[in-house]
Amino acid sequence: MTTRTDCLQRDAQDPLAALRDRFDLPPGVIYLDGNSLGARPKAALARAQHVIAREWGHDLIRSWNTAGWFDLPKRLGNRLAPLIGAGEDEVVVTDTTSLNLFKALAAALHMQATDGAERRVIVTERSNFPTDIYMAQGLSGWLDRGYVVKLIDSVEELPDVIGADTAVVMLTHVNYRTGYQHDMRATSALAHAAGALIVWDLAHSAGAVPLDLNGDGADLAVGCTYKYLNGGPGAPAFIWVPRRHQARFTQPLSGWWGHAAPFAMAPDFAPVDGIGRALCGTQPVVSLAMVECGLEVFEQTSMAALRQKSLALTDLFIELVEQRCADHPLGLVTPREHARRGSQVGFTHPHGYAVMSALIARGVIGDYREPAIMRFGFTPLYTSYTEVWDAVEILRDILDRQDYDVDAKRDAVT
Amino acid sequence: MTTRTDCLQRDAQDPLAALRDRFDLPPGVIYLDGNSLGARPKAALARAQHVIAREWGHDLIRSWNTAGWFDLPKRLGNRLAPLIGAGEDEVVVTDTTSLNLFKALAAALHMQATDGAERRVIVTERSNFPTDIYMAQGLSGWLDRGYVVKLIDSVEELPDVIGADTAVVMLTHVNYRTGYQHDMRATSALAHAAGALIVWDLAHSAGAVPLDLNGDGADLAVGCTYKYLNGGPGAPAFIWVPRRHQARFTQPLSGWWGHAAPFAMAPDFAPVDGIGRALCGTQPVVSLAMVECGLEVFEQTSMAALRQKSLALTDLFIELVEQRCADHPLGLVTPREHARRGSQVGFTHPHGYAVMSALIARGVIGDYREPAIMRFGFTPLYTSYTEVWDAVEILRDILDRQDYDVDAKRDAVT
Repeated sequence: MTTRTDCLQRDAQDPLAALRDRFDLPPGVIYLDGNSLGARPKAALARAQHVIAREWGHDLIRSWNTAGWFDLPKRLGNRLAPLIGAGEDEVVVTDTTSLNLFKALAAALHMQATDGAERRVIVTERSNFPTDIYMAQGLSGWLDRGYVVKLIDSVEELPDVIGADTAVVMLTHVNYRTGYQHDMRATSALAHAAGALIVWDLAHSAGAVPLDLNGDGADLAVGCTYKYLNGGPGAPAFIWVPRRHQARFTQPLSGWWGHAAPFAMAPDFAPVDGIGRALCGTQPVVSLAMVECGLEVFEQTSMAALRQKSLALTDLFIELVEQRCADHPLGLVTPREHARRGSQVGFTHPHGYAVMSALIARGVIGDYREPAIMRFGFTPLYTSYTEVWDAVEILRDILDRQDYDVDAKRDAVT
Repeated sequence: MTTRTDCLQRDAQDPLAALRDRFDLPPGVIYLDGNSLGARPKAALARAQHVIAREWGHDLIRSWNTAGWFDLPKRLGNRLAPLIGAGEDEVVVTDTTSLNLFKALAAALHMQATDGAERRVIVTERSNFPTDIYMAQGLSGWLDRGYVVKLIDSVEELPDVIGADTAVVMLTHVNYRTGYQHDMRATSALAHAAGALIVWDLAHSAGAVPLDLNGDGADLAVGCTYKYLNGGPGAPAFIWVPRRHQARFTQPLSGWWGHAAPFAMAPDFAPVDGIGRALCGTQPVVSLAMVECGLEVFEQTSMAALRQKSLALTDLFIELVEQRCADHPLGLVTPREHARRGSQVGFTHPHGYAVMSALIARGVIGDYREPAIMRFGFTPLYTSYTEVWDAVEILRDILDRQDYDVDAKRDAVT
C-alpha cells in the first residue's frame, strides 16, 4: 500500500517539482481541473500588464508593427509546434477550437472534392466533445450536397465504418470525458487505406501527451491552448496544416488576415501561401499574448518527462481510489492501458455531481460531466504526488461519511 | 480665421473635456487613430489584473460561474445595445467582425431561401472594407448554389442594382477610408421595397455616430469594439439580431455556446432561443472583459453629445487644413455634409504615406490607407480642439518644408 510518506518521497525526487513555482496556485486548493482550465503561469500577469499599459496604452496603433501583434498567431504557432510534432510554419494560434475545426473540415471536404471523390460521409464518435459534432453538422447541413455526419458508438466500429464513402474521419485524440486516447498512427493509416482524410482534435492532448502529427500521418489538426497549455481562460485555439497540404488548403472563413496582401485592400480574396491562409480576422491581442507564457514553461522540460510523471500520477490516483474507496460504487471509465490513456481520470458515481460538489467545497477541484462522471485532470507541471494522496483521502472521507448533498443545485456551467 | 486661442476657449467650455481623464494617453502624442485602435481606458488595466490574478489565478475553473464568464457576451451586448439603438438581449460580443458577418450573411440567405425566394445576389460596395467582401465571397463560393457578390462603384447605383434578384444588401455604414456615412433608414427601406434584407457593418459607426438599428429598419448588424468603443486591441466584435428575426436566425458556425443546453452534451445541435444562437465557441475572457471598461465611459455621456463634438472636431479639422495647407495638393475625400459624415476625415496627397509617416514621427498619429489617403479619426471622448489645431500646424509645417521621405519604407501593417 502506498502511503503519504511514499508520496512525499516521490515529490522530493521529482525532477519536475520545481516547475510548480512557475504557477500561481491558490493556497488550500488541490487543482485537478487543468484539463478544463489550466492554472495561471505567474508570468502571465506581467505580460498582460505590458501589453495593456505599454503596447496598447503607450504605443497604441504602432504596436501592430513594433510589438509584432500581426505576426503573433504565427509566432506562437511556431513555439507550440514542437509540442505536437508539427513543423515550422505549420501552426497558427487563432480563433476558437470550434471555428478551426470548421476550417479544417471544410478544407478536407474540399480536398476530397477536388480529387473528384464522391465521398459524402464524415465519421466521428457520438462520445466526441459536442461542439465538434455540432460544427460538422453545421458545415455539412449548409453545404447541402448530401454530406452526412455518421456517429459511431465504439472505436471498434472504425474499421467497418470507414469506407469508400468516407470523406473525413474526425476524432478527438483524447476523449474529454473518459480520457481514452486513440492510436493516432494506426487510425490515420486506417483512414488513408480507405482513401479518407483524418482530422484530429487535440483539445485534451496538446501539452498532455506526446504527439507526433507529422510522424503519425495526420492530415489536419486543431486544439486548445487554455487547458493543458495554460494559456488563460478562453485563449485562442490553434490549427495545424502540414506543408504537404497547405497549397490545397482552402476554407470559407476567408477573412483579410488570410489574404496574400491584406493591406493592398483588393476587392477579391486571394489566400496567402502557407499556414497564414488558416487565419481569418483580427485576434484578441491580450488573450493571445498570454498564451506565450504557458508555452515558455514547457520549454523548461520535455513532453517525454511530462508523460512519465503524468502516467505516474494517474496510476497512483487509480490505485489509491480503488484501494481506499473500495466500498463505494465508483466505476473507472479511463483505460488502464498506458497507451490508451490521456492525462485525466474519470470515475462514475451514482451521485457524481453531488460528490464532486463536496470535493470542490473541500478544495479538491475536479469537474463533472454527464453522465455521472467525476473528472480529474493531472498536470505534471504543477500537480504533486502528495496532492493526489490528499485528494483521494478527502474523497474517501466524503464517501465514507456520505457528506454530500444529493439535491445539490446545479451550477449553470458544470 | 480660427486661432489656437479660440481652440483653447472651446476646450475650456467643452462639457466632455473631463472624460479625457478616463483614458491613458501618452505624453507628446496627438492621437487621431481611434478609428483604428481606440485609446486605453485607465480602468482596463485594473480590470485585466483582476480577471487574471483573481478570477483565473485564484478562483480558476469556478469563475465560469462565480465571475459570470459564460454570460459575458450577453452582458456586454446589453451594455452596448443603447449605443446602437438595439434592444435588450439583441446583441452579443463575440468572435471577430469577419466571423459575425459570415453568420449574419448566412442567416440572411437562409431566411430568403426559407421564404422560397430565388434571390442569388449579395450587393455590396467595391470600396467596402475588404474582409467584408472576402467573407461574402467565401460564403457564396462555398454554398455553390449560384450566389454572387455584386460590387457597385457608387452609392448612386443602389436603387438600380437592388432588385428582384437581390437576397442581401451588405453595407458598411461608415466607410473605413472616406468616412462616408450611409443613410441607414433610406437604404434599409430601399432594400426592403425590393424584397431584400440588409446587413450593416458598424465597425466605423458604433461609438462614433448615433445609431438607431431598430428605428431605421436594419435587419442584421455586426461591428467592432476595438475602434471607437475602446475595447482593446483585437477585442471581440459584436453581432445584433433583432427580436423579430431571432426565431429564424440560423447559421452554420453552430458551436456549443449557441446550443440550447450546452452542458447536456447531446450529440445533436439545437440552437438556443434568442440572441445566444449567434454564439459559437469559448471566448477569450481577458480581452472580452476589458470591453466593459470602454462601454463604461460611454455611460458618462450620450451619443448626441458625442456627435455634436465629433462634428465640431471634424469641421474644425477640415476648415484648418483647407486654410493653412491651401498651397498643397490635398484632396478631401470625406463628405462635407454632416449627415453623410462619420467621425473621421480623409485627405489624399500624392505622397500620402510619406506625409503620414512624418506626422507620426512628430507625434500626430493618424494612419494611411490605399490609395494615397491620410486618415484622421476624431474621438470626442479624448480629443481636444487644441489638438486639432496643433495637428494641422504640424501637417502644415511638414508640407511647407517638404519634410517627408518619399522613399519611406512601408511597415508590414500600414
